[in-house]
Amino acid sequence: MAEPSLHTYLFFSIAITMLLVSPCLGLGLDTVREFLTREEDTIVFSLIERAKHPLNLPAYQDHACFGPSSGRRRNDSFAELFVRESEEIQAKAGRYQSQGEIPFFHSRVPFTLAPPYNFTIDLYPAAASVNVNDAIWGFYFNELLPLLAKNGDDGNYAVTAASDLACLQALSRRINYGRYVAEVKFRGDQQRYTALISSKDKDALMTLLTSETQEDVVKRRVEKKAMVFGQDVTLDGPTETGDKNTSQSSFKVSPSVVYKLYDQWVIPLTKNVEVEYLLHRLD
Amino acid sequence: MAEPSLHTYLFFSIAITMLLVSPCLGLGLDTVREFLTREEDTIVFSLIERAKHPLNLPAYQDHACFGPSSGRRRNDSFAELFVRESEEIQAKAGRYQSQGEIPFFHSRVPFTLAPPYNFTIDLYPAAASVNVNDAIWGFYFNELLPLLAKNGDDGNYAVTAASDLACLQALSRRINYGRYVAEVKFRGDQQRYTALISSKDKDALMTLLTSETQEDVVKRRVEKKAMVFGQDVTLDGPTETGDKNTSQSSFKVSPSVVYKLYDQWVIPLTKNVEVEYLLHRLD
Repeated sequence: MAEPSLHTYLFFSIAITMLLVSPCLGLGLDTVREFLTREEDTIVFSLIERAKHPLNLPAYQDHACFGPSSGRRRNDSFAELFVRESEEIQAKAGRYQSQGEIPFFHSRVPFTLAPPYNFTIDLYPAAASVNVNDAIWGFYFNELLPLLAKNGDDGNYAVTAASDLACLQALSRRINYGRYVAEVKFRGDQQRYTALISSKDKDALMTLLTSETQEDVVKRRVEKKAMVFGQDVTLDGPTETGDKNTSQSSFKVSPSVVYKLYDQWVIPLTKNVEVEYLLHRLD
Repeated sequence: MAEPSLHTYLFFSIAITMLLVSPCLGLGLDTVREFLTREEDTIVFSLIERAKHPLNLPAYQDHACFGPSSGRRRNDSFAELFVRESEEIQAKAGRYQSQGEIPFFHSRVPFTLAPPYNFTIDLYPAAASVNVNDAIWGFYFNELLPLLAKNGDDGNYAVTAASDLACLQALSRRINYGRYVAEVKFRGDQQRYTALISSKDKDALMTLLTSETQEDVVKRRVEKKAMVFGQDVTLDGPTETGDKNTSQSSFKVSPSVVYKLYDQWVIPLTKNVEVEYLLHRLD
């Protein structure tokens, strides 16, 4: 019988290390890709739904003081209060028991409502809490929302804020999923990542995580999804197939805005999450 | 100058009566049609999003007792508790200040959170509270949900129940919009409706409200929307245009389930709302 080659030896030693280090073996590249692709639909749906409502500016104005209140900070906007209170209910209902969900506001609500469930631990504990929710909050309200919603005020602030929450949660889940992406990439090439993490070489990590070709595919695909999902479907008319020649104004959300969302925020912030996660991956 | 004809006289007297009786003149047939068509997209999106999660049965089991609680009824399911508590927040946030929104559970939460807004009153006050939320609740959980969600349990009960709430709210808004449909139809043919309402002739009202041709168009259109919005969009592959020959299993929600939803529940229940509204239209 031939001696095992160095290659075979390395393969098995890495596999055994992975078995010891990996929090869970259920996570793989296919699962990650499938998740990210499916979340694109959720994000595009949520944007289209938010665009159904006008901007409804009074929901976002700080320092607005409307009605009696107990214990609320006077400079919270209505939308912020709505998100805080909704997240408290969802915390109570166990939403954040899953590592995939991260709230924008941490509350101390006891977790009492949901049936028990043993979640798998896919992430490395010391890196699991990495997230960029503050950045998501900022770009959503300051930059994306004005591109989505037409000017106007129909008074439906609660429905509008519920739509904002759906967008924020979808974006947060997608972008902070960078933790899972990083975990899978780390497991797939542990030696190389370990060296870069040990030397805290952020730039080299970012380069290793970047595939411009793949990013271009994603951006063009979400732009197409905005066309397909945001068209007016009629029984007899032609169905939009994502041809770029169609006027942007015929869609419920401009496809170029969705392209920009991924180009300027979703993809760069996901990579920031990946790098930050990796920097804690050996803690 | 010629004497005004009887026709002219009738026209003006009906117009003046409408001005006196109508709660608001902003509502028209075009607005109503546009609203109903747009809500189809919202409903299909919400179903596709619910179908992303497995059934998660523990969220729906009655008599489950998990964790400490204060004041909760022991036979509430998790999903029901989640909807109740979420609706309380939304009530506090003013969601139900708009006549278009009706909660599944009435709470006594004071309305304190939202900026003030003067909503227009489109509905006739004595008929405005007509709704079929109990029937919607029943068919959604007992009949529709098992057709939407695959068997399985991933423990994400809060996210799942939030998806259920989105479906329920979209269906409730759409079906109870029958009040607006009835108001517009009443205004458009007051003499005929008044006679049938006075004689409490439910069957004749139902016949007058029914257009099988139009209902068929709606059912086929929502089936097509399920195909267009529920496909896997890829950059290079062909985009689904609603051709019925494609396998039902390639869509995120079966188009035939969406057809059935409209055929068996949405359209009949909307007409029930219309008839009930009209029966109170002269109170």
